[in-house]
Amino acid sequence: MSKIKIVQIGMGPLGLKIAEFIAQRPGLKTVAAVDTGPEIIGKSLRSFSSSLNADIIITGDLDKALETRPDVAVLATVSDIKRITGQIKSIVREGIPVVSTCEELSFPFDTAPGLAAEIDAAARENGVAVVGTGVNPGFLMDALPAFMTSVCQHVERIKVKRYQDASSRRIPFQDKIGAGLSPEGFEAARKKGTLRHVGLTESVHFIAGRLGWKLERTEDIISPVFATADISLPSRTIKKGDAAGVRQVGRGFMNGQARVELVFQAAVGEPESYDEIEVIGTPGFVSRIGGGVNGDTATCAITVNAINSVIHALPGLRTMADIPMTSYSEYR
Amino acid sequence: MSKIKIVQIGMGPLGLKIAEFIAQRPGLKTVAAVDTGPEIIGKSLRSFSSSLNADIIITGDLDKALETRPDVAVLATVSDIKRITGQIKSIVREGIPVVSTCEELSFPFDTAPGLAAEIDAAARENGVAVVGTGVNPGFLMDALPAFMTSVCQHVERIKVKRYQDASSRRIPFQDKIGAGLSPEGFEAARKKGTLRHVGLTESVHFIAGRLGWKLERTEDIISPVFATADISLPSRTIKKGDAAGVRQVGRGFMNGQARVELVFQAAVGEPESYDEIEVIGTPGFVSRIGGGVNGDTATCAITVNAINSVIHALPGLRTMADIPMTSYSEYR
Repeated sequence: MSKIKIVQIGMGPLGLKIAEFIAQRPGLKTVAAVDTGPEIIGKSLRSFSSSLNADIIITGDLDKALETRPDVAVLATVSDIKRITGQIKSIVREGIPVVSTCEELSFPFDTAPGLAAEIDAAARENGVAVVGTGVNPGFLMDALPAFMTSVCQHVERIKVKRYQDASSRRIPFQDKIGAGLSPEGFEAARKKGTLRHVGLTESVHFIAGRLGWKLERTEDIISPVFATADISLPSRTIKKGDAAGVRQVGRGFMNGQARVELVFQAAVGEPESYDEIEVIGTPGFVSRIGGGVNGDTATCAITVNAINSVIHALPGLRTMADIPMTSYSEYR
Repeated sequence: MSKIKIVQIGMGPLGLKIAEFIAQRPGLKTVAAVDTGPEIIGKSLRSFSSSLNADIIITGDLDKALETRPDVAVLATVSDIKRITGQIKSIVREGIPVVSTCEELSFPFDTAPGLAAEIDAAARENGVAVVGTGVNPGFLMDALPAFMTSVCQHVERIKVKRYQDASSRRIPFQDKIGAGLSPEGFEAARKKGTLRHVGLTESVHFIAGRLGWKLERTEDIISPVFATADISLPSRTIKKGDAAGVRQVGRGFMNGQARVELVFQAAVGEPESYDEIEVIGTPGFVSRIGGGVNGDTATCAITVNAINSVIHALPGLRTMADIPMTSYSEYR
């Protein structure tokens, strides 16, 4: 069995971890690596990890990388669909399908319909599929809850919660959620947009789209989680009343009712980490993953697990619910 | 939008409940109903439920029913793939796809490879898909756990538990799980095969197949759950030491290790009902539905939710993991 050849675009922390995961899979092989960073162009993948191929030198030239004739491109660059559309079109023009970690690509049909149509048309013209994936958006708060409604005769509402205790997470993650900011500092950061988990509104539309709900509006509200006592961490001290983290709530409304409600909350000192899906329907149920799912590992893994599915998907801009069902496979 | 026309074959309790569910869906319509029971042939569907169409008269003549030119056939007759293969071939010969609640059809590639190949060939020849579904097998202990591994870089083992407290279930269900039988009575019933949940071995193969695990053997072991004290129910009294229910364990082995373990346990007085998926891997996690999922409603619902997916599936004998992803939809 010949290996699936992959070109990777974007060799930041996520791209490098994906490269390591690909290197562990017997059926997959990274054949080229692209980045725009002058400080890493010209370096071999081996210089980042001993498990990676010394012969693959990061290039700044996408066209040259595509000359390796890969079976699929893995795009781990930006969250912003506007900034990625051109790249996707260059890749699909060569008849190469795309799996991307771009959050806004996961379900852009309502949030960026023009770009979605452009990508879809380019993909169809060239007979390949494009999909945006990741653990969230892409799975825990959209594809998985949608699939779980398979057992329902009726669904009235869906609520999904992803709660994370950030106490033991990396310092950049604690920074990202605003841990330690004063109320004013938090508000300033919120306005700048740096606290936002990208993709929550896309997940709301993903679920609504699958269930056939025509939403009249969505909302995506970010607020601080305040520390209720002083918290001492190795990296910082958070004073009572300052921000311990962030709470983001996405809702989709139909006839004035929030049919979809997604809550993403990450804070230092959060009592429990978990992922929870509540389906209010017939039958109704609550499905809960205590401890939650590790986001970094899971996003890289699902991207790798989606590679074979996107190769066999129908041409066009696809979602995690309309490519062949992903799963881990020992041989890919 | 024109409705999807459905012929239903098998108008027992399951078929009738499916008919009621179809009648509640704006995009679906039962156009013919078939059964072999002389006591119900000639009766109108309305005579079973006020929500059903009085104009549909149950017929014993499948060929005549197929003259209504349905878009899909829903087959809710037997659990045994041997007894259903001929029927499926008659239906697909007319270019009609099939959704069936037949447990052994859910993943028959290892347990009945000859019949699976025969059905697959007939379906492909006629350009339609055939799928076996239900809440279990078909979802909770196979398709759902397989999909959840999408977030994993590695999976070492999968354990799934479905535990049900049968105290408040229907009397036929309590009978089916052997509640109240003496140890000898239970053993006799076990040997006769009446206690068996059909499809557990199929679910083991389903997961292994999705994950690329080549199993060297499977096992499917049925044992009693004994009452640890006298239990009084409206329907019966179970004496301490007699059977309160049944425990069935399916395992799939690779290199001597049980990589898949499925436990289905239903007993009167079971302390808790739940459905639980444990993935031992990277990342590992436990996903749990407290209270469990109501089997009767869920099986009928997922059958109805699979109708649109099977119409759009690639031709051949398919599984719940390789038809377009099912979900509830308000308009179908």
